[in-house]
Amino acid sequence: MTDTSAMDLRTSRRGFLGTATAAAATISAMSLSGCSETAKRPFAKNSHGLIANGDTVLLQGDSITDAGRNREREGTPNDPAMLGGGYAHFIAARLLAERADANLKIYNRGISGHKVFQLAERWDKDCIALKPNLVSILIGVNDIWHKLDGHYDGTVEVYEKDYRALLARTKKELPGVKLVVCEPFVLRTGAVTEKWFPEFDTYRTAAKKVATETDALFVPFQSMFDEAVKKAPPAHWAGDGVHPTMAGACLMAETWLAAVSGAKA
Amino acid sequence: MTDTSAMDLRTSRRGFLGTATAAAATISAMSLSGCSETAKRPFAKNSHGLIANGDTVLLQGDSITDAGRNREREGTPNDPAMLGGGYAHFIAARLLAERADANLKIYNRGISGHKVFQLAERWDKDCIALKPNLVSILIGVNDIWHKLDGHYDGTVEVYEKDYRALLARTKKELPGVKLVVCEPFVLRTGAVTEKWFPEFDTYRTAAKKVATETDALFVPFQSMFDEAVKKAPPAHWAGDGVHPTMAGACLMAETWLAAVSGAKA
Repeated sequence: MTDTSAMDLRTSRRGFLGTATAAAATISAMSLSGCSETAKRPFAKNSHGLIANGDTVLLQGDSITDAGRNREREGTPNDPAMLGGGYAHFIAARLLAERADANLKIYNRGISGHKVFQLAERWDKDCIALKPNLVSILIGVNDIWHKLDGHYDGTVEVYEKDYRALLARTKKELPGVKLVVCEPFVLRTGAVTEKWFPEFDTYRTAAKKVATETDALFVPFQSMFDEAVKKAPPAHWAGDGVHPTMAGACLMAETWLAAVSGAKA
Repeated sequence: MTDTSAMDLRTSRRGFLGTATAAAATISAMSLSGCSETAKRPFAKNSHGLIANGDTVLLQGDSITDAGRNREREGTPNDPAMLGGGYAHFIAARLLAERADANLKIYNRGISGHKVFQLAERWDKDCIALKPNLVSILIGVNDIWHKLDGHYDGTVEVYEKDYRALLARTKKELPGVKLVVCEPFVLRTGAVTEKWFPEFDTYRTAAKKVATETDALFVPFQSMFDEAVKKAPPAHWAGDGVHPTMAGACLMAETWLAAVSGAKA
């Protein structure tokens, strides 16, 4: 479960992840200690990384992204209710505070229970139509969870194939789009039992593979949580092993922001 | 309105704010740019500052602190619904993520509409009984707002006297308690018109005065927002000039954390 190394923040063939190794250092430094200067600063360096001024940022995925967002507000970028109560909310709050003058538009379109093929079904409305400059996707836990529960007959091969097609379609329909593929993760508590393994790891590997093929930035959330459980029990980060607590969501946001800020467009 | 300098994070007579000048540097650096190392780290330095492992932290105040918190959960520390949707929520999320192993207990007991005398009325239940190690208070905007609206006949002298008594009582009943006095602030938009000034500034001055007298850490939120409006219009930070937006609340939390982490117990 810990074989995803910090170097998952690999160097892109296209080169837009030229400083990904710096971001990788972030993740490997997840002892959560760090720069002695930092405590004197309310905010991290205003590095733009993958997000340029004026960009539209779309966060996509399942319940972890959804986090109770208000569907009725989904057309209003930056609206707190639209953003839900998870990592998307923390990412948006920091971006809008730190880069208040950047005219960013941030959307959350995660939907609880979704698997990768369901993202594809609603991609025209919930991605392409928004014309995002950056699309971040966290998907995969339901592809295996619903299978383990007997409610789905997909395989990791289907997941990988569907995910690859979704990313290719996104790049084709949104030329120049910046892609972020977030690693699916679980914590060994709650709903997550030994029967999830080693199969779950194959989904993580598949996500990493399609990210590499697509020149997407890969954010290694599993490695992050594997480090985090050295500090506090799994339930501190995700009560049921799948859905992050407030602390888990905050940690995800900080890691995502560090990775995205460290990557160069 | 901008006469509160960064040096409001003064050196305490008692000395527990020995590194307050570092925190002051934070605030004066509110251009939101900073340490080049920071972007590589998901979290600020794990400086404990005023908050020790095992501490109970209480955030007190009016609607800005309240921010829609769930009263039914108020007995459950660290509960996201109990924390509301404002700066208390952002402070708690970061503390619980960054210091996951510190066994912190964080409470929000702000109540919308309250003035300083109303804090005093409920202080036994909503402060002393919790036995907090650190008490942070943000109070004052209603003391003047309700007066301007004709619903209250208090004066800045009453505010200062009541605030001084509240802090003295807190120190007496909770020996060793660490106190944080947050500067009342407004932004010149929405409900905040010219008729608020210069009277509003006298409330800020009074808060600073009682903080100094009580050896409390003073967090200069007005200075922070005065800098922030150079980056984005007042409504970006507080739609009605009083209640912070998500971006405003996030900025407050980061500034509070930087100040509290920079101060030494």
